Amino acid sequence: MSSSPRPQRWKKLDGRLLLQTRIFDVQSVDFHHPAHPAPREFLLINAPDWVNVVALTPRHEIVLVRQFRFGMNDLSLEIPGGVMEGGEDPVNAAVRELAEETGYVGEKACLLGSVHPNPAIQTNRCHLVFVRNARRTRAPAWDPNEEFEILSLPVEEAYACACRGGITHSLVLDALLLFRPHWEKLRRS
Amino acid sequence: MSSSPRPQRWKKLDGRLLLQTRIFDVQSVDFHHPAHPAPREFLLINAPDWVNVVALTPRHEIVLVRQFRFGMNDLSLEIPGGVMEGGEDPVNAAVRELAEETGYVGEKACLLGSVHPNPAIQTNRCHLVFVRNARRTRAPAWDPNEEFEILSLPVEEAYACACRGGITHSLVLDALLLFRPHWEKLRRS
Repeated sequence: MSSSPRPQRWKKLDGRLLLQTRIFDVQSVDFHHPAHPAPREFLLINAPDWVNVVALTPRHEIVLVRQFRFGMNDLSLEIPGGVMEGGEDPVNAAVRELAEETGYVGEKACLLGSVHPNPAIQTNRCHLVFVRNARRTRAPAWDPNEEFEILSLPVEEAYACACRGGITHSLVLDALLLFRPHWEKLRRS
Repeated sequence: MSSSPRPQRWKKLDGRLLLQTRIFDVQSVDFHHPAHPAPREFLLINAPDWVNVVALTPRHEIVLVRQFRFGMNDLSLEIPGGVMEGGEDPVNAAVRELAEETGYVGEKACLLGSVHPNPAIQTNRCHLVFVRNARRTRAPAWDPNEEFEILSLPVEEAYACACRGGITHSLVLDALLLFRPHWEKLRRS
């Protein structure tokens, strides 16, 4: 049910680079609303797309990693994930990140969906991938600053952990939401 | 099941401001890992905490807004939400944002949980709030750049919409995940 008209689209015009870092850049960009006399400036953060992966083991456990996260200044329990490389396919990127962080390799990887980490100020997306029959078959390949505890939890325990605040990374929670219908189907079969 | 040791915490040291905007600031911050000889620099984005709100109508529909989002450069279907004001309580902020964006006012507001929009590079959190018996009792109070279509969808339709890619804002999907156990309880009663 809708009780008001659909908003108009603003037209994206020129941008000015305010900051360039190795992780993202910040731009001030002009947007013009069709009913306004002049454009207005809005801030945008540009970064490569990200991926994360729900890797389900043959015993129906979800592969998790615990790592120190500098933004929250604490350890964080998450599913594996990372930054896509230029030109990389999201599903391939997720399979690569899973193997690099955990040593797990699976089968039949497929996209659960793609979300906007912050559609107000970030231009990038995060792609959520599902991998079946994940088994630990190789050694992880961590970057110099990386250090992971590798865990797995039965699916329902992972949901319970998320709902009681044990998993707080927004993009990990998104993957759990979009994985739910797949899990319902798997559980019934 | 865990098969590796818990990672160590890095110690947060001094930071240098790289960019200050009206929405967020960017800092380069030194962190020291206890086993490393010297600190390393990491980028952090600091912003106030955010809130969003699952407002359930007496007919068990979720209140939604559609608005133009500059980051994704498109219209986005979301639950109401916004930036907390200094010193504001998360539940009060959510109730305020709900009324300002939609004119809906409800009862028994409570916190569903608090998530990290991006624990790797963002220091802030987003608080997810549940409001019952939401009714449209007043006129919205939009900021000059704001323009919302106000809708409502039966709860199961909102979940179906999210799972087929109709809702892509990561923090909105988080609220739907954490609302699920409350909805299961309500539906059974």
